[in-house]
Amino acid sequence: MISIESKTIEFSTNGRTDIIDITDKIDAELATTKMLEGNVTVFAIGSTTGITTIEYEPGLVNHDLAEMYQQFAPYDKPYEHNNTWGDDNGGSHLRSALQGSSMTVPFINGKLMLGTWQQIVFIDFDTRSRSRKVVLQFLGEKQEDS
Amino acid sequence: MISIESKTIEFSTNGRTDIIDITDKIDAELATTKMLEGNVTVFAIGSTTGITTIEYEPGLVNHDLAEMYQQFAPYDKPYEHNNTWGDDNGGSHLRSALQGSSMTVPFINGKLMLGTWQQIVFIDFDTRSRSRKVVLQFLGEKQEDS
Amino acid sequence: MISIESKTIEFSTNGRTDIIDITDKIDAELATTKMLEGNVTVFAIGSTTGITTIEYEPGLVNHDLAEMYQQFAPYDKPYEHNNTWGDDNGGSHLRSALQGSSMTVPFINGKLMLGTWQQIVFIDFDTRSRSRKVVLQFLGEKQEDS
Repeated sequence: MISIESKTIEFSTNGRTDIIDITDKIDAELATTKMLEGNVTVFAIGSTTGITTIEYEPGLVNHDLAEMYQQFAPYDKPYEHNNTWGDDNGGSHLRSALQGSSMTVPFINGKLMLGTWQQIVFIDFDTRSRSRKVVLQFLGEKQEDS
Repeated sequence: MISIESKTIEFSTNGRTDIIDITDKIDAELATTKMLEGNVTVFAIGSTTGITTIEYEPGLVNHDLAEMYQQFAPYDKPYEHNNTWGDDNGGSHLRSALQGSSMTVPFINGKLMLGTWQQIVFIDFDTRSRSRKVVLQFLGEKQEDS
Repeated sequence: MISIESKTIEFSTNGRTDIIDITDKIDAELATTKMLEGNVTVFAIGSTTGITTIEYEPGLVNHDLAEMYQQFAPYDKPYEHNNTWGDDNGGSHLRSALQGSSMTVPFINGKLMLGTWQQIVFIDFDTRSRSRKVVLQFLGEKQEDS
């Protein structure tokens, strides 16, 4: 029989496209559900956040990815958002809208179906450090029905 | 026990990266399901559409986001798609493919787990006004099982 | 009653933003589940992959989409990822991270709720040909409960 379990993980970030590997946290929560087959929806709360998968290695996560985002949505541009609200994070909102803040990942035999070099990451696009919440919603079966 | 309810919402758009806040419509449909815990898959029908979350304020939705899209997939470029089909919406298709037309959002205690400034939007990337359908598929429990 | 069925499809790709229409494969697997209402999570294994929808016609898939990706994440750029690992696919990882490797698509009456010109595609962003696996996880009801 299929059941739902919703969890929330919390952590602090540095902002400015800070990329955080949350795979281990998701694995740990998955283990507590005792579910074997199903999926987890990873949903980041907030309009300057992103969720995706990437090979979590320093070159990509400390340099290359931020450089790509800076190209199409620079932090230092006079956005209407900034002018309207006296804010400085228009570029953060654009990055978040394009990246998306939700992802659904299947698991089988209690294991996330990720590739060896494929980690689930939370990205904080905001211009300052933040405290963040990510909802992990597990939907699955604890034992295989026959 | 978990059940599924599929709904369709319909509305008209202006095209050319018209961004429409559909959060209230989703909230209203969620209320009719009487589900307390689960998620909704928001799926836009059509290959020139997009679904994402953004802070729905005029600066971002009337100016900044369209400017970003225009930069990496301009409307006024001689795409092969346009040449092949005598069409003018090659840029619309590219924006849609990169943005994605589906998003899954969890709800708990009957409330979507969105941030305060995080709204769910439909984006019409096409070059003309359209009538659009978005599927809302709710998957969840009406009452908490113990 | 809702059940889960997880399938894996495998195929070879040419890499360098090779775009493959997997809609028919998904339709075929959906038919074997005998599910009528629910959704399928399409998840690509690997950190240089992408999943999205697009109108599958030669202009877009053989030319325009690759040109857009090449603009914001060129293959021939000296990425830190390449320098660190002696690799050549930094641009592949960036494209994959921005595109996303997962998508959830609803079906009703046993039919995927796609638009007429909206196909589900796997994109191989890697710089070489690969053998790939995509998980199709179906979640739904075989018959409508009343």
